[in-house]
Amino acid sequence: MSTEPGIGWLGTGRMGSVMAGRLIDAGCPVTVWNRTAAKTAALAARGVRVAPDIAALAGCWLVFTMVTGPADLEEVTLGEDGLLTSERRPGVLVDCSTVSEEASARIRAAAAAAGTGFLAAPVCGNPEVFAEGQGSFIASGPADTFEAARPYLERIATKVTYVGGQEQARLVKLAHNLYLGMMVQSLAEVVTLAEKAGTPREAFLEFFNGSGLASPWIRRRSPELVTGDRHLTFTNEQLRKDFDLGLGAARAREVPMPATSTVYQIIQSAIGHGLREEDFLSLYEFQARGAGLGLD
Amino acid sequence: MSTEPGIGWLGTGRMGSVMAGRLIDAGCPVTVWNRTAAKTAALAARGVRVAPDIAALAGCWLVFTMVTGPADLEEVTLGEDGLLTSERRPGVLVDCSTVSEEASARIRAAAAAAGTGFLAAPVCGNPEVFAEGQGSFIASGPADTFEAARPYLERIATKVTYVGGQEQARLVKLAHNLYLGMMVQSLAEVVTLAEKAGTPREAFLEFFNGSGLASPWIRRRSPELVTGDRHLTFTNEQLRKDFDLGLGAARAREVPMPATSTVYQIIQSAIGHGLREEDFLSLYEFQARGAGLGLD
Amino acid sequence: MSTEPGIGWLGTGRMGSVMAGRLIDAGCPVTVWNRTAAKTAALAARGVRVAPDIAALAGCWLVFTMVTGPADLEEVTLGEDGLLTSERRPGVLVDCSTVSEEASARIRAAAAAAGTGFLAAPVCGNPEVFAEGQGSFIASGPADTFEAARPYLERIATKVTYVGGQEQARLVKLAHNLYLGMMVQSLAEVVTLAEKAGTPREAFLEFFNGSGLASPWIRRRSPELVTGDRHLTFTNEQLRKDFDLGLGAARAREVPMPATSTVYQIIQSAIGHGLREEDFLSLYEFQARGAGLGLD
Amino acid sequence: MSTEPGIGWLGTGRMGSVMAGRLIDAGCPVTVWNRTAAKTAALAARGVRVAPDIAALAGCWLVFTMVTGPADLEEVTLGEDGLLTSERRPGVLVDCSTVSEEASARIRAAAAAAGTGFLAAPVCGNPEVFAEGQGSFIASGPADTFEAARPYLERIATKVTYVGGQEQARLVKLAHNLYLGMMVQSLAEVVTLAEKAGTPREAFLEFFNGSGLASPWIRRRSPELVTGDRHLTFTNEQLRKDFDLGLGAARAREVPMPATSTVYQIIQSAIGHGLREEDFLSLYEFQARGAGLGLD
Repeated sequence: MSTEPGIGWLGTGRMGSVMAGRLIDAGCPVTVWNRTAAKTAALAARGVRVAPDIAALAGCWLVFTMVTGPADLEEVTLGEDGLLTSERRPGVLVDCSTVSEEASARIRAAAAAAGTGFLAAPVCGNPEVFAEGQGSFIASGPADTFEAARPYLERIATKVTYVGGQEQARLVKLAHNLYLGMMVQSLAEVVTLAEKAGTPREAFLEFFNGSGLASPWIRRRSPELVTGDRHLTFTNEQLRKDFDLGLGAARAREVPMPATSTVYQIIQSAIGHGLREEDFLSLYEFQARGAGLGLD
Repeated sequence: MSTEPGIGWLGTGRMGSVMAGRLIDAGCPVTVWNRTAAKTAALAARGVRVAPDIAALAGCWLVFTMVTGPADLEEVTLGEDGLLTSERRPGVLVDCSTVSEEASARIRAAAAAAGTGFLAAPVCGNPEVFAEGQGSFIASGPADTFEAARPYLERIATKVTYVGGQEQARLVKLAHNLYLGMMVQSLAEVVTLAEKAGTPREAFLEFFNGSGLASPWIRRRSPELVTGDRHLTFTNEQLRKDFDLGLGAARAREVPMPATSTVYQIIQSAIGHGLREEDFLSLYEFQARGAGLGLD
Repeated sequence: MSTEPGIGWLGTGRMGSVMAGRLIDAGCPVTVWNRTAAKTAALAARGVRVAPDIAALAGCWLVFTMVTGPADLEEVTLGEDGLLTSERRPGVLVDCSTVSEEASARIRAAAAAAGTGFLAAPVCGNPEVFAEGQGSFIASGPADTFEAARPYLERIATKVTYVGGQEQARLVKLAHNLYLGMMVQSLAEVVTLAEKAGTPREAFLEFFNGSGLASPWIRRRSPELVTGDRHLTFTNEQLRKDFDLGLGAARAREVPMPATSTVYQIIQSAIGHGLREEDFLSLYEFQARGAGLGLD
Repeated sequence: MSTEPGIGWLGTGRMGSVMAGRLIDAGCPVTVWNRTAAKTAALAARGVRVAPDIAALAGCWLVFTMVTGPADLEEVTLGEDGLLTSERRPGVLVDCSTVSEEASARIRAAAAAAGTGFLAAPVCGNPEVFAEGQGSFIASGPADTFEAARPYLERIATKVTYVGGQEQARLVKLAHNLYLGMMVQSLAEVVTLAEKAGTPREAFLEFFNGSGLASPWIRRRSPELVTGDRHLTFTNEQLRKDFDLGLGAARAREVPMPATSTVYQIIQSAIGHGLREEDFLSLYEFQARGAGLGLD
């Protein structure tokens, strides 16, 4: 443990701000930094300390990173005056971004060389879910690093699962998102079928949500499915990216993924048909079009 | 309502016995009949009245049928001295079997001609689920017939959903089972991937069941997925039959079902590879074989 | 054999006219009949004898039928004053329509009872192909019936293959059409890929047609694929019908058809997206849309 | 053009030897080199000059490379004393290997810097096909480089198609192989269906090969499909590699490939079921197993 007290948070986009906010609400001494400084304003207004540069954050004993992808993660950790290249380094680095196993392993190796424990800790749940304290963490890395970080993870999210000593959390997160895509497409197919056969979406979902098959996610999003509200949570393009990574990981392990692949190709087609930037619930509309139904 | 008191139950196989048992437990005056009389023995031992023939049951004002398919249903309703061809006919006939929309419509037409209200009321859940009172009904038919039957349905199952005035319940039940098959295959793919990437099934399912994606069904069956217990609940051949009916209904409505079809072909392949009579959780083993993993 | 000499031809739509025309060109004494009499006009103008009713045709020793489906076939054979119910019956009945194995078996049984040899003889090739003498027959039925009909089949088409003693020809024809659909979709995928990667369709097809993978069908239709000419030869709805029958036959034999099913669902989606009545070469445009390319 | 006359051939594996042999048969002054010198012995026995090292080959004005993949290609061209790093460099470098577009572009850039014209010229056809003069080339690169190489390409293969100024030939080759895999799977499905429905493979293929759908490749390999001869031409693992590259290229261009993906997953499953090193015609056996048929 570093002699420097405090917790650093790097990356205060929409998700990062909510997550850091939960630590702050729990009374933790958090210092934040974000490349686009404006995105720290709301937290600063709440009295949170804003670091002038990454090096200032590197002195915290525990630092969380929540950035948009592997390139950003490498820059803020391995770039000049980065978290792992500054004079002082955090004792524990917890990365919550969605990156590939390969990128994660590169950071882990660099962290080990720098004397920093590294925890891969991707999240499941969107900002709304986290704001309500219903988010979850999947964590992998050395067991002692996990134990050191665990109390803080548990302040951020209800559910924290440790899945292995290396990069396993990355794959588990991808597996989660592959399942999510399949779940939405599966639901789109049966809802469309029921609807075309004379059972309105609302009635079908009422039944479905009372059955043993409905996940909390489906119950939560059912009103939107019925009303056609497609406010943005996760675009088809973002979902495709996770399928790219997940199917790449499956190929590396020689695991056939026939249902996953079918859904992947549907996502690709939906993008080609103009739904690139739409929320992925629009897979329902894409399915409806294929059934000859107009858009909602 | 008939002047004849009492409730009739036709079909006391494993599922029918559990369902009738719930009515009996609730104090309803139930008379049962089963083609193979031995299957009424356990209920008779509890003091339940056993009808000598179908005609004796036809005098009940409300009769439930729970038989194995359309041929049996037609025989017990439209055959000689059947429920709809006997001198006395029930005021309400509630069929809980899994039959096609076409078969259901034929019975409905005959019931209407015989002056009997007909409710299509297929169930979701296996005998264990119903025994615990966690089963559900999907019902369709005339609204007044539904209202007459509803109090009894609610004594049998926790959740009762009315989905339309004709045969819609049949399709909704099929949609439920299509989703069930897709859910199991989707899970099989991501569990296998996680497992081959170093996260044991148990750890993965612990995470998954804490996430927003896990349905009660998956949580309930997770221990079996981990241990490899594949006691029979529903065979691959039975699942294929529901996919046959569901995809046939989708074709009739011109609804493309790409993910459903992919899973259907996997079920067919699993049958060809020798898993015909296995519980459909064996789709997990079939997926594992494709990934080069030995059977459990 | 009937005392009435000559050959009867029932069904002079576009395809039937071309086929009958080839017999006539070869000097055979053909008598024709068609429900819509106007469709015999062109042949009549060439001096061909037109029968006043089906019964008049039934006296021919060999009668060909070329109608649009099983309902028509049953009517002209088993209906009142049909080919198999008239006073006189042909010695040999050769049906060239596309009907299911079940319908074919029903006609065969009736023909046998009527003392008529029945040959199932569906065709491969469109009217243009047959007009050039490049069509083919697949035949099944009793070997002696086949031998009796063979000289006439060979006057109509270049290639005549005998595939079995019962209804096998029906299934083989369906298998041919399933392959045709897969071939077109497979080509659509690789042409679109090459095109988006900078190789124009024309250059790609020039290469492809010189390789060992190009079928005569692809070589023949390549100019249309390049120019976007989509004159009607076979609609997506007609192709779907053959996939319905073919996949139904596969299900009956428990043969998984994963690639076929994928293409079937694509055809269904294309229909939902408005391409129902388009020539099935439009699957290329549907693929191009999915790739984000505008229509030609 | 170099002052050194003659043509160099680098890579005399089974395919390279056949190809170089055709130039030699045509009277061209060919010098060969192979990393494993033993593989040049047969050509040397025919009097062909064998270069002692790559540098000796680099002096030829035109050099062909036929190696197993991008790593080998980079080594023999860009490694120490490679074709593009020796003191003398060939005027034209023609690469016939199967490599990705990315690898091809790297070599092209290095060749340009070295003053060497680079032609991507992958081949279609196996050694037997080339030995009979029925092979084909797909070429891309600067038009003048193509024109310089063309006379030699035409001595090796019947068909030479120019498809673009950069790396297009790589993609077209992959598209060819994707189609090949789909063609084999499509055929496996319909042959299995016909067989299970009572038409032997031999009869079906006789019909099929006389229809407009059969490619020369299918006609050529039909006897093997019938007899079950599965001598090695291209393993399932090799086919999977080309699908990896082809689907990667499709993803880069955002082209959905639903039928291709279905076949890719089947290949992956076949590998998991133990058919990794089998000739890819074994996809027929894998399909037959799924249909509940024993292996041949």
